Amino acid sequence: GEDRYPSRVATKATITDRKDPVVYGRAGDGPLSESELRFYQDNGYLSFDGLLSADDLAACLNELQRLRTDDAVKASPEAVIEPESRELRSVFSIHKSSALLRRLCGHPRLVAIARQLLGSEVYIHQSRINYKGGFRGKEFYWHSDFETWHVEDGVPAMRMVSCSIALTPNTSHNGPLMIVPGSHQRYVSCVGETPDDNYKSSLKRQEVGVPDDASLTQLVDEFGIAAPIGPAGSVTFFECNAMHGSNSNITPMPRSNLFVVYNSVENKPVAPFCGLEPRPNFIAEREDFTPAAELAKDR
Amino acid sequence: GEDRYPSRVATKATITDRKDPVVYGRAGDGPLSESELRFYQDNGYLSFDGLLSADDLAACLNELQRLRTDDAVKASPEAVIEPESRELRSVFSIHKSSALLRRLCGHPRLVAIARQLLGSEVYIHQSRINYKGGFRGKEFYWHSDFETWHVEDGVPAMRMVSCSIALTPNTSHNGPLMIVPGSHQRYVSCVGETPDDNYKSSLKRQEVGVPDDASLTQLVDEFGIAAPIGPAGSVTFFECNAMHGSNSNITPMPRSNLFVVYNSVENKPVAPFCGLEPRPNFIAEREDFTPAAELAKDR
Repeated sequence: GEDRYPSRVATKATITDRKDPVVYGRAGDGPLSESELRFYQDNGYLSFDGLLSADDLAACLNELQRLRTDDAVKASPEAVIEPESRELRSVFSIHKSSALLRRLCGHPRLVAIARQLLGSEVYIHQSRINYKGGFRGKEFYWHSDFETWHVEDGVPAMRMVSCSIALTPNTSHNGPLMIVPGSHQRYVSCVGETPDDNYKSSLKRQEVGVPDDASLTQLVDEFGIAAPIGPAGSVTFFECNAMHGSNSNITPMPRSNLFVVYNSVENKPVAPFCGLEPRPNFIAEREDFTPAAELAKDR
Repeated sequence: GEDRYPSRVATKATITDRKDPVVYGRAGDGPLSESELRFYQDNGYLSFDGLLSADDLAACLNELQRLRTDDAVKASPEAVIEPESRELRSVFSIHKSSALLRRLCGHPRLVAIARQLLGSEVYIHQSRINYKGGFRGKEFYWHSDFETWHVEDGVPAMRMVSCSIALTPNTSHNGPLMIVPGSHQRYVSCVGETPDDNYKSSLKRQEVGVPDDASLTQLVDEFGIAAPIGPAGSVTFFECNAMHGSNSNITPMPRSNLFVVYNSVENKPVAPFCGLEPRPNFIAEREDFTPAAELAKDR
């Protein structure tokens, strides 16, 4: 199809306007109020404390510990290991490897919000745990998720939403998510060609598909930086094109979160716009479009 | 002399009590009030907005830019370069290389506070600029400055105070100084022997003389974390043995500060307790004990 958001093809970065709606549904379509939808429309994110119960959370933390100490998980292709410390940085596709986390990814409250924002049935494009341990937790440099999902995965339009569930407290000290609120209204094309198998290094440290210094400065000058913090169990939805990142974490408190990406079933991936082979399904789903709500059902 | 604070000599870390006073002067001896002295006694730091005038600050920023773009500075032994980005991380001994910064290090308000805290005349043990640029500013891992100044420089007692002057705004987003308030009352001995010429790598990334994970966890569990933030021109004094560090800075806003360390003239360095050659004078003064107040006078 037509590439409405070209990136990594020019020698100079550009900032252009978004070509897609931000909110696809309406206030009556789900749990979000008119003013919540407007906040998301304007800022590109929405945060909630206590969307999940203490029981949900405790079960999730147990599961996290189990996965963390499982050598088979650490050796699997779904695991991303920190180059220096050899610690677990991320585990992908946890909605396929853990029954408990599958149910969480299909949690009715989360899915209802995603469906309302995207105005359609939704499926899971990606899920992961980011550990970001204490002491030596590394930064995630600024990026728009959509840029990668478009270029490397072939997702055509901005009709996706990410949901970050805090599994530990997110404070201003332990490298919380930072978002440039409003940046989802711009598209920053990036410089540099995509290498083959880029994901093998980019998931450790992203170097292609990140904004140049001048574009980032322009966005932050215009919009500032927001860093939603909250207790374990707090949930932040953020628009797929919102510019975001996080600093390192030298505190002893890990900043672990579960990250699940909902895509509209009307926005299924086509061939990657970079012209390379698509990334594996455990990073970017292209076969299983099961409605996310189904995952909450035991099987 | 006797080593009252041994470190890097045992295979296991220990946390022991401080053996020295925290505040050596009294309320009548200088600008700090009884309650400010008590805050410093309890927390190991004190922060002030607007201790410096806008003119002081503007001149200082100009000087910073000049030093930053001076190739001779970058090539000098006093400069510390980031291994990856090749950007300037720190410049040492700026009270000797810049007349303007020398006057700032001898600023009557700063020196009066240092003299009051240390209860004697003071001289400058070390001065430096830390650039911590935007985008790729790296973390400074947790450490007690005193541990290094004692082991590697031979400073006998905890009778020093560091003063960090913000040259750019310090926000919660751009990797501000984090302090464990109260940690100055404990001494964490570190594991690992000091290598020869340790400073050549430790100033880029400290790996010896940092607390082990268990000791740091214990301190933070007991005391928590404080991160004094403030506009450009704000000043934080912190006790030489306060455990502190800072996260990385991926925001476009640099977090530059000028750092000057006052030592009591009654606490001059002896031979380093690690038994190695002392570090160079531009990192740890051992010859020039000029009272800091003299530096404010033009020469």
